[in-house]
Amino acid sequence: MKTLIIVSHPEIDESGSQQYLKEALPDSSDITFHHLESTYPEGKIDIEQEQQLLQQHDRIIFQFPLYWYSSPPMLKHWQDEVLTENFAYGFGGNKLKDKELGLVLVIGMPEKEYQVSGNEGYTLSALTTPYQAMAKKTQMNFLKPFLIFQFHYMEESEKMRMLIAYQQYLMIENFDTLRAKENWFLQQLDDMDEKFLPDGSQFILDQIKELIEDNRMELDEIQMYLEQAGGSL
Amino acid sequence: MKTLIIVSHPEIDESGSQQYLKEALPDSSDITFHHLESTYPEGKIDIEQEQQLLQQHDRIIFQFPLYWYSSPPMLKHWQDEVLTENFAYGFGGNKLKDKELGLVLVIGMPEKEYQVSGNEGYTLSALTTPYQAMAKKTQMNFLKPFLIFQFHYMEESEKMRMLIAYQQYLMIENFDTLRAKENWFLQQLDDMDEKFLPDGSQFILDQIKELIEDNRMELDEIQMYLEQAGGSL
Repeated sequence: MKTLIIVSHPEIDESGSQQYLKEALPDSSDITFHHLESTYPEGKIDIEQEQQLLQQHDRIIFQFPLYWYSSPPMLKHWQDEVLTENFAYGFGGNKLKDKELGLVLVIGMPEKEYQVSGNEGYTLSALTTPYQAMAKKTQMNFLKPFLIFQFHYMEESEKMRMLIAYQQYLMIENFDTLRAKENWFLQQLDDMDEKFLPDGSQFILDQIKELIEDNRMELDEIQMYLEQAGGSL
Repeated sequence: MKTLIIVSHPEIDESGSQQYLKEALPDSSDITFHHLESTYPEGKIDIEQEQQLLQQHDRIIFQFPLYWYSSPPMLKHWQDEVLTENFAYGFGGNKLKDKELGLVLVIGMPEKEYQVSGNEGYTLSALTTPYQAMAKKTQMNFLKPFLIFQFHYMEESEKMRMLIAYQQYLMIENFDTLRAKENWFLQQLDDMDEKFLPDGSQFILDQIKELIEDNRMELDEIQMYLEQAGGSL
């Protein structure tokens, strides 16, 4: 699965959160990082190039700071220019069909304000309706948004947990299932190069892998038991 | 009451609907027409000037074609630049408080598609959530949006009716009440200059005024009767 991260931020070099996310990107040929404002400093978008990029990827991510409950203007400009009739919708316009659309939103206010009687007063599910409608129009599957609230107030351990979830959001199919996350962790453990690990840590890692696999087997057994029980009722 | 119409359209001269609306603007010092893309062709916004404009008006209208369920990028750029902290929100940021925010949306698809199981699938009430949230944040009163569906398919008589409603949307306080509309029509009739009317038409206009006023008196009487009946129950 190939993932295209379309980032829109007018001053990305000044943004601690965007720099943090960028540095955490896995070094993988399956991930393309694409910052619009630096690709097109004059605002003139190469439509054909963008449409090719879209077609070469399976999961499309819009990543941006939520300003006035929407994206910076450059991403909107990109939408208006690139998502043309007969490409994204309308007659023959099925080039995005069955691809995934995800949002990575960096949000300045706390999560609790985005509900009725909160200071912001509206949920992120409501505020992102225009993107849901875009996914519907282009026949894309809309993923649960990945929301980062108040990055600058996060502790280091929270940031680390967020990063892992972010990498999973970018790379895993069905990223929201326990099984997919397990497999992802096992893969990460396999990818660690013994040479760079302190003495004895390989043994610990092997133990962790075994533990994850044991847990999985137990869960599978319970699952099987439940299914049989259900069938005999 | 002073109304500021902030129009965003990247190619306004090519837009039949925007030209039609513009030509229909009442010649009134209470209405300011402000097209962003032609005011700032380089995209560099004069923030102070824009904030002054806002403060000089009571009703602020965002008028634009609905592309990908939102505004053209220029209006978003305007929001991000002009609606600064300490002006529009935050400490001391009450400069828009109690003003009205209205939307005039020109929409290419038919109204019936903007509902569950319609082709667009989402209501305009849901799609405009980001503007409702902006009104909340800035303590503005959000008006019912003024929606123009499929302008190019409208018959001449429909366009005329739409224009009258548009002028009322711009100019009348409580534009959605019958009484306000009546007063507006009476004012329009008063403003007609006898010199330019065909012979005998002044008599007809006077009859119409009398009819409207009679209707109003009858409605007032019914209203009074209902209130008394309610009080004696």
